[in-house]
Amino acid sequence: MAKTRIASIKKEVIIGHGLPTVLIGERINPAGKKKMADALRAGNLDIICAEALSQVNAGADIIDIAVGTFGVDEKDLLPKAVQAVMRTVDVPLCFDSAKPEALKTALKVYQGKALINSVNGGAKSLDYVLPLVKEYGAAVIGLTQDEQGIPADPDRRVVIAQKIIERAEGMGIPREEIIIDCLASAVGADQGSGLITLETIRKVKATIGVNITLGASNVSFGMPGRDLINNAFISAAISAGATSLIVDASKAHTAILAMDFILGQDQRARRYTENYRTTHKKKLQ
Amino acid sequence: MAKTRIASIKKEVIIGHGLPTVLIGERINPAGKKKMADALRAGNLDIICAEALSQVNAGADIIDIAVGTFGVDEKDLLPKAVQAVMRTVDVPLCFDSAKPEALKTALKVYQGKALINSVNGGAKSLDYVLPLVKEYGAAVIGLTQDEQGIPADPDRRVVIAQKIIERAEGMGIPREEIIIDCLASAVGADQGSGLITLETIRKVKATIGVNITLGASNVSFGMPGRDLINNAFISAAISAGATSLIVDASKAHTAILAMDFILGQDQRARRYTENYRTTHKKKLQ
Repeated sequence: MAKTRIASIKKEVIIGHGLPTVLIGERINPAGKKKMADALRAGNLDIICAEALSQVNAGADIIDIAVGTFGVDEKDLLPKAVQAVMRTVDVPLCFDSAKPEALKTALKVYQGKALINSVNGGAKSLDYVLPLVKEYGAAVIGLTQDEQGIPADPDRRVVIAQKIIERAEGMGIPREEIIIDCLASAVGADQGSGLITLETIRKVKATIGVNITLGASNVSFGMPGRDLINNAFISAAISAGATSLIVDASKAHTAILAMDFILGQDQRARRYTENYRTTHKKKLQ
Repeated sequence: MAKTRIASIKKEVIIGHGLPTVLIGERINPAGKKKMADALRAGNLDIICAEALSQVNAGADIIDIAVGTFGVDEKDLLPKAVQAVMRTVDVPLCFDSAKPEALKTALKVYQGKALINSVNGGAKSLDYVLPLVKEYGAAVIGLTQDEQGIPADPDRRVVIAQKIIERAEGMGIPREEIIIDCLASAVGADQGSGLITLETIRKVKATIGVNITLGASNVSFGMPGRDLINNAFISAAISAGATSLIVDASKAHTAILAMDFILGQDQRARRYTENYRTTHKKKLQ
């Protein structure tokens, strides 16, 4: 089974099957957050730095940074955001952009081994993003979708994953640098989609053996009690083979630790019990 | 995939893969409950009737009844308890006893199709319990353990499950009357045990295809924040193939509904959203 190393100057994170699940904090993203979007348009990075700190305090191992929104030049703002967040927290960063030129300017200023979010199985994406992965020695999240969209059939998602990995290996990028995103989507909109995602995870784990991630919170979109659904899905996804999750640390950390404990991925239950004590203390105060 | 029917006079419960997970309420059991044990020794059945009602109100589909404790004659008390609970709630019942003679007296008074908890792969248990299953047309929970104890190897648990089913079929009991208990135990005591249980579930589902159950709360024994661990395990177990769970309805119902929703086992999310509304209303009051 593949192990992926992501690093900042001060911290190293190893993602791998059987290891504690790596939590990629998802809150630095202006989508649906008017205040953050306004601040980013004004070039104000205080809000995202505060969010990054709060995600790390809540248990995030890596911070995902997206600044793309109407009125923002990502190529200019993403590297500035990366620098600001690097000064605020010491965990490794993940650059989240659909624009390869923004990924490139961010990679130029980043100190450490970055995670790029993302490449997909489309020819254009592979052509633009994989050379950056190679040039900067980064790791990359590979989405199981291509020009035709997101396949409903888990086997076809696995084929796209294979394609991304073969293409990367053909360029001399080791397969452990690819983390496959099996794509979670709103179960409320498509009742079969949860099962498809879980089945894709199992198949990618069994047939390819690389690391697997998910934007897990998508499953509960449009539903009441989203955290209840997200936590159930997180448990099932980790149990099926997800080794990292892109989630809100303040809501998902405990569920991840509980599942790692159950799977024997938390030596002597240290992480679970430490977190339980801290959370419990906060409640009592 | 096998479907199992359990029934009272008024209600029928169908257990099956792809159907909503069946919740077997576990609270009617004097183990570790001094007040209930004292009441049972005095022949007072009020407490267990109140618990049964509270489990049904919290979402239990079936009620598990155990009265075995020091100073209680189960052969005498179990049928009385069954009759009292039958007058209190209208869901089907599950008789939980290690004593075949107590199971027999309970079966005699029960109106409906009962679930027996349990038979195991040991010769004595098979010899005593399966004839009762046959005679009373009941269903039975088959534990994946035998005279030698509980195997640590999932494949050996599957072999015991196979043995119970072959023996039953040899007596003319259809395999859908056997629900295999893959045996959850304290992960805090044995770090690998959670994974063994989940692996057993996947293998029983794949190789035998009968219904699967678990006393899920065992996994968190000795740990702080037990509900957090139990809920994570419930999600993983259902996702792996468990079709019913023996749990405390007041704590586990929501987690079960969330996972059924994710797996598309809850048509139009009706059960999940109804429960969410009811629970939310209670909180507002």
